[in-house]
Amino acid sequence: MKDGNFAVAQSGGPTAAINATLCGVIEGAFSCGKKIYGARNGIFGVVNDDFAELNPIFADMNNLQLLKNTPSAYLGSCRYKLPDPDSDSEVYETVFANFEKHNIKMFIYIGGNDSMDTVNKLSAYSIKHNKGVSVVGVPKTIDNDLMGTDHTPGFGSAAKFVATSVSEIARDCAVYADKSITIVEIMGRNAGWLTAASALSRSSTTRAPHLIYLPEKPLSVSKLIDDVKNSNVRNMVIAVSEGIVDENGEYYSNMECLAGHDEFGHAQLSGSAKVVENILKKEFGRKTRSVELNVTQRCSSHFASLTDLNDSVSIGKAGANAALDGESGIVMGYSRNDDNTFSIIKNKVSYVANREKKVPDNFSAENGCDVTGEFIDYCLPLIIGEPEIVTENGIPKHISLKLN
Amino acid sequence: MKDGNFAVAQSGGPTAAINATLCGVIEGAFSCGKKIYGARNGIFGVVNDDFAELNPIFADMNNLQLLKNTPSAYLGSCRYKLPDPDSDSEVYETVFANFEKHNIKMFIYIGGNDSMDTVNKLSAYSIKHNKGVSVVGVPKTIDNDLMGTDHTPGFGSAAKFVATSVSEIARDCAVYADKSITIVEIMGRNAGWLTAASALSRSSTTRAPHLIYLPEKPLSVSKLIDDVKNSNVRNMVIAVSEGIVDENGEYYSNMECLAGHDEFGHAQLSGSAKVVENILKKEFGRKTRSVELNVTQRCSSHFASLTDLNDSVSIGKAGANAALDGESGIVMGYSRNDDNTFSIIKNKVSYVANREKKVPDNFSAENGCDVTGEFIDYCLPLIIGEPEIVTENGIPKHISLKLN
Repeated sequence: MKDGNFAVAQSGGPTAAINATLCGVIEGAFSCGKKIYGARNGIFGVVNDDFAELNPIFADMNNLQLLKNTPSAYLGSCRYKLPDPDSDSEVYETVFANFEKHNIKMFIYIGGNDSMDTVNKLSAYSIKHNKGVSVVGVPKTIDNDLMGTDHTPGFGSAAKFVATSVSEIARDCAVYADKSITIVEIMGRNAGWLTAASALSRSSTTRAPHLIYLPEKPLSVSKLIDDVKNSNVRNMVIAVSEGIVDENGEYYSNMECLAGHDEFGHAQLSGSAKVVENILKKEFGRKTRSVELNVTQRCSSHFASLTDLNDSVSIGKAGANAALDGESGIVMGYSRNDDNTFSIIKNKVSYVANREKKVPDNFSAENGCDVTGEFIDYCLPLIIGEPEIVTENGIPKHISLKLN
Repeated sequence: MKDGNFAVAQSGGPTAAINATLCGVIEGAFSCGKKIYGARNGIFGVVNDDFAELNPIFADMNNLQLLKNTPSAYLGSCRYKLPDPDSDSEVYETVFANFEKHNIKMFIYIGGNDSMDTVNKLSAYSIKHNKGVSVVGVPKTIDNDLMGTDHTPGFGSAAKFVATSVSEIARDCAVYADKSITIVEIMGRNAGWLTAASALSRSSTTRAPHLIYLPEKPLSVSKLIDDVKNSNVRNMVIAVSEGIVDENGEYYSNMECLAGHDEFGHAQLSGSAKVVENILKKEFGRKTRSVELNVTQRCSSHFASLTDLNDSVSIGKAGANAALDGESGIVMGYSRNDDNTFSIIKNKVSYVANREKKVPDNFSAENGCDVTGEFIDYCLPLIIGEPEIVTENGIPKHISLKLN
């Protein structure tokens, strides 16, 4: 077991399960009597020596339970890419000076594929400069687009929220006798995992969504119109990814206005459903509306997947244990067992960082507007079970480092 | 006790509790061994002789329990205003011929203020033409804008969903170190009840929403900008009604495009949050985004208010009992007891139909951007408790008359 203290930070977009993973890291540190610091706002907290001591807060088990069911990032987040250490080493020197100041020898970074770039660079720097800090990445993202893992912590809860919301929206659509079209826009820039998960809405009472469009499959406007024409459904529900593209690779959301780019160079998208709404309204003249699930799909925790939350705790704990064992430059992941439970595995961070895992061909239907049974079999186990929610004054009780 | 059979129908926009009220009506009919028909798509079902026999379906208590937790209108809905019977009596003759055909002597109509117009006209026609049909209205609307009742069935569940979602969105907003503004758009055309309910999001971990704008209080663009300027909040959350207006009574949503009208002459609105977003983005240059809760606030039942659901069952049952007692031309309502439980009362339908109850002055703060403690005391009891949700394949199980 390594000497020294722990630090942990969270990075990237919020999820319903990223705090469950933080729970697991804290439990891992506690189980061997370690001190653990939480860096505020991701790697910025380390750079700015802005740490919260987590031991006194989470000695109270009730707080740990609240943390597990609190959405978004308890420690705050950031979107920041470290510079190349060979051309700009200043920030690295600051980071490791602050680690040394607090005797931090194990650093757990919970984040998505951009955040794993940080794990990659810090662990390489630590080795090269003999700093003796174990740097371990634990994945999170509702996008499910990380390499080297069956799925990502946070995806199951978002998938459950999307499927539940679509099933409720389908009921809302079904009440009127007139024909209608409802388009639901779902997150997932370049990977359609979460949009695909809308298929889990289907049950004995609804076949909605009747059409599903993923960003992996280019969709011409004429095919879109034909698909709607060929679907004999009175109250149609269409699930579209925010990032659907036409046959020329042009984003639907760009058809009306030019979008900007974030600092990782990703296109900032919005409004693919609105564009589809306008196309179909003009073509069919029916009542047509669009619903953007927006940030609620990543921050709603009141109906999270218990499977996701429990597995998120486990992977956090495993990350802490790997760091304790002196491992570094790795990212934790899940592998699937035959009974659809999951074992925790480790990947080299270079295999994960800056790469995206798209929805493979065997998961998207040949007709270009649906998913396959294979995808349903893959996704269903991830959304099973509901946590017990502690409420106060009728709404879920959360825990927070500061009052906002 | 009156002879004959029951009919029941649902009308207007969906809610999470309108089927709980249907449950109550069915229970009321069952408890005295009556036959009960469900008219499909509101009054249209009666006109078109399109009835479902509810006794065989709901003899199974499990189905009745599922119905209580299924959102939206099980029987379908309509938005249809009956003509003046003196100028056009044909539809009335059809309605009462179909009632007679099935020996229907009690008709329960569950709906909002427009639907109560139907109750008013049908009961008056029945009396005038000696048809002997008891016509009783049972209210429902997430808008809470009906006269003669402490609150409306369905409002509590929508209020709970809004407060919960805003508290989760507030957590999502709080993660980044940069200043930001998030605008949440909430339903309520002319009455700000549901927008006001966003205040129930406030807890020991968040003061969000930091500003609340109701349609009852005109808001000039300069006051909006001043309010934001004066609020010293890093990650600001602003709750706006879809129907907020400026000092000239102009809808914010009309500032960019002209909206149409539905057949009751109501302006069709959308996008007040988007307009506010654009105003504040231009003024402050901070990260600014808007979230439209859209139809999910009226059709989400997976975190409904148990108080609302139970009281919705009771008011449906009371409506059935009133019809059995031969009462007609009335609308059921709630009156509040000292201990914040509710007793069921009756109003003459003419007192309720076609009228709107707005948020009174003592519920909205003098600063024009908040609610009062009096409003919190009023609203809080309505959102308490959560139903036990039966799930199938990880999502809530619903019941449906037909596969959509």
